[in-house]
Amino acid sequence: MKEKFKVTPWEVSGKVDYDKLIKEFGVSKIDESLLKRIEKHAGEHFMLKRNVFFAHRDLNWLLDEYEKGNKFFLYTGRAPSGPIHLGHLLPWIFTKWLQDKFGVELWFQFPDEEKVLIKNDITFEDTKRYLYENMLDVIALGFDPKKTHFIIDTKHADIMYKEACKVAKKITFSMVKASFGLNEQSNIGSIFYTSMQAVPAFLPSIIKGKKIPCLIPHAIDQDPHFRLTRDIMPKINQYKPASIQCSFLPPLSSADGKMSSSESQTSILTTDSPKEVEKKIKKYAFSGGKDTIDEHRKKGGNPDIDVSFQYLRMFFELDDKKLKKIEDDYKSGKLLTSELKEILIKKINDFLVEHQRKREKAKKEIDKFIFKTK
Amino acid sequence: MKEKFKVTPWEVSGKVDYDKLIKEFGVSKIDESLLKRIEKHAGEHFMLKRNVFFAHRDLNWLLDEYEKGNKFFLYTGRAPSGPIHLGHLLPWIFTKWLQDKFGVELWFQFPDEEKVLIKNDITFEDTKRYLYENMLDVIALGFDPKKTHFIIDTKHADIMYKEACKVAKKITFSMVKASFGLNEQSNIGSIFYTSMQAVPAFLPSIIKGKKIPCLIPHAIDQDPHFRLTRDIMPKINQYKPASIQCSFLPPLSSADGKMSSSESQTSILTTDSPKEVEKKIKKYAFSGGKDTIDEHRKKGGNPDIDVSFQYLRMFFELDDKKLKKIEDDYKSGKLLTSELKEILIKKINDFLVEHQRKREKAKKEIDKFIFKTK
Repeated sequence: MKEKFKVTPWEVSGKVDYDKLIKEFGVSKIDESLLKRIEKHAGEHFMLKRNVFFAHRDLNWLLDEYEKGNKFFLYTGRAPSGPIHLGHLLPWIFTKWLQDKFGVELWFQFPDEEKVLIKNDITFEDTKRYLYENMLDVIALGFDPKKTHFIIDTKHADIMYKEACKVAKKITFSMVKASFGLNEQSNIGSIFYTSMQAVPAFLPSIIKGKKIPCLIPHAIDQDPHFRLTRDIMPKINQYKPASIQCSFLPPLSSADGKMSSSESQTSILTTDSPKEVEKKIKKYAFSGGKDTIDEHRKKGGNPDIDVSFQYLRMFFELDDKKLKKIEDDYKSGKLLTSELKEILIKKINDFLVEHQRKREKAKKEIDKFIFKTK
Repeated sequence: MKEKFKVTPWEVSGKVDYDKLIKEFGVSKIDESLLKRIEKHAGEHFMLKRNVFFAHRDLNWLLDEYEKGNKFFLYTGRAPSGPIHLGHLLPWIFTKWLQDKFGVELWFQFPDEEKVLIKNDITFEDTKRYLYENMLDVIALGFDPKKTHFIIDTKHADIMYKEACKVAKKITFSMVKASFGLNEQSNIGSIFYTSMQAVPAFLPSIIKGKKIPCLIPHAIDQDPHFRLTRDIMPKINQYKPASIQCSFLPPLSSADGKMSSSESQTSILTTDSPKEVEKKIKKYAFSGGKDTIDEHRKKGGNPDIDVSFQYLRMFFELDDKKLKKIEDDYKSGKLLTSELKEILIKKINDFLVEHQRKREKAKKEIDKFIFKTK
């Protein structure tokens, strides 16, 4: 019998069964022909080939429009409520690749009220602090400041709230109740919130005065928001946004589930030092290896449940051949867990040293990214 | 048996029993000692003496604070969704008197999303048009531009939405369900809306960085919003707003109920010409007179149910002695309905000619009244 699992925008628990999610959410698998179609325009990306981005909605329609000369824009976001970990970066790195390859605008939403409304213990003082910190991480990934617009819900409410009301008018309480597991004791801000998350999917169309297709790269847990958004858009004369969805980078503790910054022992933060990374990987990264070296040499390890290997596969080892060799050597027992971990530690630290340098530089660049309403 | 009546922020129907409303809503009657206390600071106002403003919440506390040197501010508003009629002006005229006498600021809210969310057939195009028209009527009443700040929900959402979220976090769906008669099929914008109506009650305190008492003059049907606001304010460390409440100027058709601009035959609009006013009063103003002149001369009329007399009492005849004479003469049969109507027609038209002149002038003054966020 399979374990029970739960995937909502606000909670991910249990061993996630992605095939089951595809059916439950009603998204489509990214198949070979779609993969080829994306490659035609953008070339290969390891996250596509390796099934990290595995599902979508209406991506063929989006490419039809693109091929007709009707360029799309990208929309993704981050609710600031804690530090950024590697799991957050994963879809954003892919988003940057999409921006570069298709030459399109990105609207990056920071819904700084979401977690205040959803969680009892988070205040606007918290989200303000993390908003700043989180923006640095996004900028550090190298998005094009000329084509990237940060919108912050409370700051940009003068252009967003009216649009959110147009959406909200079409959504009943019973609809959000079903989609998000809310009830009569839920606060009215949490009930309204999904309308604000819908806005960036059509705000550029409002600003430019013409309908522009939208593509949302996101982790699969956010799908309930955008499913609702898609239902509403035609009712307010806008395109349904297309989406492309990734699985979760797992926590250190297990190859299932989703990395969470509220458990700092099981996540790697972008501000972690090389020492901290080394310690966390060595101490906490769940291993698919055997209990003793002798046994490992004989029987080999299991990369499928090995967190270090999964981080290499999903994020850090871009070279398919090198990844294959690591996988084979690990399976055969030639590569020990300690050696696998050393490979990963070096990869993460090389990445983070560079990321932290860019993150420092980003402190002077924030203003270029924040959308100017006037 | 008494007729059934209904008073909610969005619907007033039946013969309103104000004594019953006082009990149901839990407001306090304005008694003699409170009347004297207001007079001490501001002098007399016919709307107070004649019980047009008849109820309040925490007005004694507000005056305690005022007497300690802790000045309050006024907050009232208008959801733009149609033309302004005399019934709208009534509490605003009183509000202007309060501003003048106490020398205080007025925050005037235009919740331009409210009716879009509540009514199926109203769009943001409608509210945009009426927002402009309605602002002219408010300005025409002579509020001090240095002390009066218009805040428009969608335009000022950059300072309001965040504060509304703080309120919304403390209100559950079951609370608004009970207060406003909403249900699971209500849209999530209408569910959230009351949080936006709460904001002006403490926004000046946020802007100035210290708690300032607030007085809300309003027609009694808005009490459910402010009752909820009062429950929430201590939870976000703000004063409960005090309020002073008036009865409704009746429609032409009956001395009960509330004038409504959606029925233009039973309301006098601020843009009506002298001819239109004359026609409406003569044709539609419900008379407390008798069917024939002979009978009227013998038995006299009933001013209590006579709409023309009520308009004089509530709005147009400021002189108590003159009003008393009209009342006595009407009761005795000396004054005919047609004569009473002529008195009213002249009063209304004198008022409206002047109002319309100021309304034209107001077109150049709007910018002075709109609150500048930056």
